[in-house]
Amino acid sequence: MTRKVSIALDAMGGDIGPAVVIPGAAIALERHPDALFVIHGHEAECLPLLDKYPALKAVTTFHHADVAVKMDDKPSVALRQGRWKSSMWRALEAVKKGEADVAVSAGNTGALMAMAKFCLRTMAQVDRPAIAAIWPTLRGESIVLDVGATIGADARHLVDLAIMGSAMARVVFGIEKPSVGLLNVGVEEIKGVEEVKTAGRMLREGGFPHLAYEGFVEGDDIGKGTVDVVVTEGFAGNIALKTAEGTAKQLAAYLRAAMSRTLMAKIGYLFAKGAFDALRDKMDPRKVNGGVFLGLEGIVIKSHGGADATGFATAIDIAYDMVRHDLMAKIRDSLEASFRGPNPDVAAAGPETLP
Amino acid sequence: MTRKVSIALDAMGGDIGPAVVIPGAAIALERHPDALFVIHGHEAECLPLLDKYPALKAVTTFHHADVAVKMDDKPSVALRQGRWKSSMWRALEAVKKGEADVAVSAGNTGALMAMAKFCLRTMAQVDRPAIAAIWPTLRGESIVLDVGATIGADARHLVDLAIMGSAMARVVFGIEKPSVGLLNVGVEEIKGVEEVKTAGRMLREGGFPHLAYEGFVEGDDIGKGTVDVVVTEGFAGNIALKTAEGTAKQLAAYLRAAMSRTLMAKIGYLFAKGAFDALRDKMDPRKVNGGVFLGLEGIVIKSHGGADATGFATAIDIAYDMVRHDLMAKIRDSLEASFRGPNPDVAAAGPETLP
Repeated sequence: MTRKVSIALDAMGGDIGPAVVIPGAAIALERHPDALFVIHGHEAECLPLLDKYPALKAVTTFHHADVAVKMDDKPSVALRQGRWKSSMWRALEAVKKGEADVAVSAGNTGALMAMAKFCLRTMAQVDRPAIAAIWPTLRGESIVLDVGATIGADARHLVDLAIMGSAMARVVFGIEKPSVGLLNVGVEEIKGVEEVKTAGRMLREGGFPHLAYEGFVEGDDIGKGTVDVVVTEGFAGNIALKTAEGTAKQLAAYLRAAMSRTLMAKIGYLFAKGAFDALRDKMDPRKVNGGVFLGLEGIVIKSHGGADATGFATAIDIAYDMVRHDLMAKIRDSLEASFRGPNPDVAAAGPETLP
Repeated sequence: MTRKVSIALDAMGGDIGPAVVIPGAAIALERHPDALFVIHGHEAECLPLLDKYPALKAVTTFHHADVAVKMDDKPSVALRQGRWKSSMWRALEAVKKGEADVAVSAGNTGALMAMAKFCLRTMAQVDRPAIAAIWPTLRGESIVLDVGATIGADARHLVDLAIMGSAMARVVFGIEKPSVGLLNVGVEEIKGVEEVKTAGRMLREGGFPHLAYEGFVEGDDIGKGTVDVVVTEGFAGNIALKTAEGTAKQLAAYLRAAMSRTLMAKIGYLFAKGAFDALRDKMDPRKVNGGVFLGLEGIVIKSHGGADATGFATAIDIAYDMVRHDLMAKIRDSLEASFRGPNPDVAAAGPETLP
């Protein structure tokens, strides 16, 4: 019998809090009957909700937490006020103590990342953590990282992103050697910053048994699904992600407007309603809800703050899969198997003690 | 009587060359009967085509050019082989000599920018040129710059982009004080790089009579049309532009697939065909074809290399509007009216001669 998957939830995170998190967990439990939950939140708000979902309650350990991190708390404020005692911190701590295999929160990204770094610590083999998004493409799905954990990346960090992203792709797509591209701009000769070029050279020179480096890709390659893993620095990655979300909303609004403009269009809409429903379902952002924090000594999943129960359940699905297919072990494997040589940025600077 | 607008064309640029450029000019001439053309290209290819469009031929001065810059020429190669004698160079030179008011090319971006800098020179008041895109939004259109002229931007360059972009917005949208936002990422405290913060401070502190600075915007604000002008560094801007293009193509493919999947959907499509045609028209990338080079001593418009005659005509439309509404004068006005103070990057470094 396989081991159960224990999932820690920050019930107070997100725009809504427990009224989304607890029903979301109930939905996820139906899909993963071998899941256990460790829920951290305010008992006055959570316990009455839990009573409504007896199946969930039966597999849940509940812990009261006095403090809830606010969605607009700055990371430093969240750390000062919420360390040790907030529901967010306690969910992370459950992972650290081994009481849970993964933590899920819809709380604010900056606070969650700051607390996760403090509580779980960054892996010894990587310089900085990252956030990976699962991105729907014409070919299926791709992983894009970093979408905003840190700003700026040297070549070494980009290589770390490639290693961690491909380990995640092995989990999500079940393929042995995912293809990896470095996001760059398509203007010859000014092609990207030095770090991207250096990272490309390092990845091309090999020694990475668990990934297939395919070279530079451009922004429009993401939606095409040209590679399984798109690697980029966090500033550009966050802008790419948000821009794509904005464009999708924009086109959906155009489509709605077009279909309600004339009587003929409205009649056509009725006939094609099934197709439109399938399309809406395909474009449903709740289906791809869940950023994966990589590079920490533990797995953390960030749900959109505005997610509803269905969306939050998707974030739990991702959490479950990451544990079930052992993301942490795959990342460690990949890091250990990768000959990365000395950090070129450090090497270029030379030893400081020589004249 | 208003002065005619003289437009120099590089007939050899783009994937197709004269067979797109010349019919494109003929389309644009119908919309702008007071346009004159100065066409540079290979006579064996161009003259037979020109004969097919007598109205265009009547307002065209044709010049033979031996050399055509290739779409995959590196900028350095294009400069070495194409300076003085290529159709691309000659079109730019026509602007420099005052024979034309604006140059339009579908040739490769890197080569065109390199030649434009060499031939026309960067304006004395700005450090570096930029490429601005007209971006369709839910509110109408916005201007986004820089979408790939240069990589990396200090605060001063971001402020220059705000000034030049808002001057262009005055031309394109006919408003006196366009709203301007700085593209940033939405994670508190790690909010963006230092340059973006410094540029925000400079823009907020004022002294820019021709723009209304609105603060930071995120990727999804572009499609919403939150501001008239979105300012960003060229790497992130290029990735945002390409990612949005990719997302739009992806959703169009989803829609096509959905509408052909079932008989009911096909019937619905027939009823709603008018609406779909209007939607396709709205999403037609040919309607927003034309990147505007800003910060040079002359106006240059870059058409997509893969544009057809309709798309190339749109690039000519933009060129025409920029001349007719005097983009160069508006940029100069805005630069002169803007108190920008000393370059903070230089100021921060301190005077070099002091100990």
